[in-house]
Amino acid sequence: MLKLFYTPHTSALATRIVLEEVGAKYEITLIDFEKNEQCSPEYLKINPRGRVPSLVTDSGVLTETPALLVYLAQLFPQSRLAPIDDPYLFAEVQSFNSFICSNLHVAHSHRMRGHRWADEPAAIEAMKRKVPQTVKVAFEQVERHLLRGPWVLGEQYTVSDAYLFTMAQWMEADGVDPSSFPKVLDHRNRMSLRPAVRSALRQELGDQ
Amino acid sequence: MLKLFYTPHTSALATRIVLEEVGAKYEITLIDFEKNEQCSPEYLKINPRGRVPSLVTDSGVLTETPALLVYLAQLFPQSRLAPIDDPYLFAEVQSFNSFICSNLHVAHSHRMRGHRWADEPAAIEAMKRKVPQTVKVAFEQVERHLLRGPWVLGEQYTVSDAYLFTMAQWMEADGVDPSSFPKVLDHRNRMSLRPAVRSALRQELGDQ
Ligand SMILES: N[C@@H](CCC(=O)N[C@@H](CS)C(=O)NCC(=O)O)C(=O)O
Ligand SMILES: N[C@@H](CCC(=O)N[C@@H](CS)C(=O)NCC(=O)O)C(=O)O
Repeated sequence: MLKLFYTPHTSALATRIVLEEVGAKYEITLIDFEKNEQCSPEYLKINPRGRVPSLVTDSGVLTETPALLVYLAQLFPQSRLAPIDDPYLFAEVQSFNSFICSNLHVAHSHRMRGHRWADEPAAIEAMKRKVPQTVKVAFEQVERHLLRGPWVLGEQYTVSDAYLFTMAQWMEADGVDPSSFPKVLDHRNRMSLRPAVRSALRQELGDQ
Repeated sequence: MLKLFYTPHTSALATRIVLEEVGAKYEITLIDFEKNEQCSPEYLKINPRGRVPSLVTDSGVLTETPALLVYLAQLFPQSRLAPIDDPYLFAEVQSFNSFICSNLHVAHSHRMRGHRWADEPAAIEAMKRKVPQTVKVAFEQVERHLLRGPWVLGEQYTVSDAYLFTMAQWMEADGVDPSSFPKVLDHRNRMSLRPAVRSALRQELGDQ
């Protein structure tokens, strides 16, 4: 059985939504950031990077959201959550996920995790101040260039939609006004009505 | 024909190595950072994010190194540069590439591109000072956990090796002592002997 190491209100939500979409049997193990459990010796044996999500599969442990999302799409091909038979469209999904992971998510992380990249409190504050701008620039890319509509890839709903939705949850907290991004906002609203998304969010509430 | 928008001494080298490995016919178009060509109106039409690499294919333009690498492995399956028939091993390649892209490359970028994440010169200097430490921590993950040896995935040479080699080129400039990382160093040495790598590096010299 699949097992997901999970923390509410993190990027791990994307993987949970996809697990719900494909109808997988899976278990959740909560990692409590308040207790710094992501750095406990037990968890570092699962994921030596000390981050969530980690997905335990029959073949071994996988980390990194873009890898998890595409792995699940391949494990449950009948769900058609990635265009795995078309290398070009598949690369577009990968490109989108990589942009989210290396750019939008990284921009967001400078709000609460600035200590990763600088030690001085003033520098950490300076990073925090710029987050509304960097996250906004990333969402401008999504709004203008990457989100075709109605879904990221166009007509086909894919794992990229779960990933975008996860990031779009944080817009307000990152100081970005969602009303400047009508396509992203419409996407977020439509996503929040999907049974898989509702189920993932409801269970997240129950976790706490 | 494939066309790669390229700048010497950037992460775009990984894609060029893979183009050489698969024996693809491709053209290079140089983007000169000194002239800020990555932000020229012409180039922003190719890649609105203003970054290299971008790969022009018959189907359209692709961006983001992890997407390009896997796309090329799929386009040239006879080269066996990714375990595309095994979803779990394929996910391991993806996971490695995603870690490089969102963590090691991002750590490195805080040395010369700190202005992306903060405005104050003192904060940008503070980020620069921490780069030797953050890049070192990322290479520790590679050395201890991610690089199986002789290649990243073990016996099979994959696109991940080209990506790791590209980052390992920058260790000294990032203030990291390669002798602390014997596996990475051995990998870098073996990589630099491969005809495809020599060819990519020789051509890069010619570009300048
Ligand atoms: N690139 C990784 C990033 C994972 C990541 O940074 N997760 C955050 C939560 S969103 C985390 O575990 N942070 C814990 C910490 O930094 O201590 C991915 O996409 O899975
Ligand atoms: N996540 C992207 C990052 C691309 C990237 O940041 N490229 C750098 C060179 S290594 C760049 O184009 N920088 C130009 C700039 O920041 O203006 C990828 O992996 O392709």
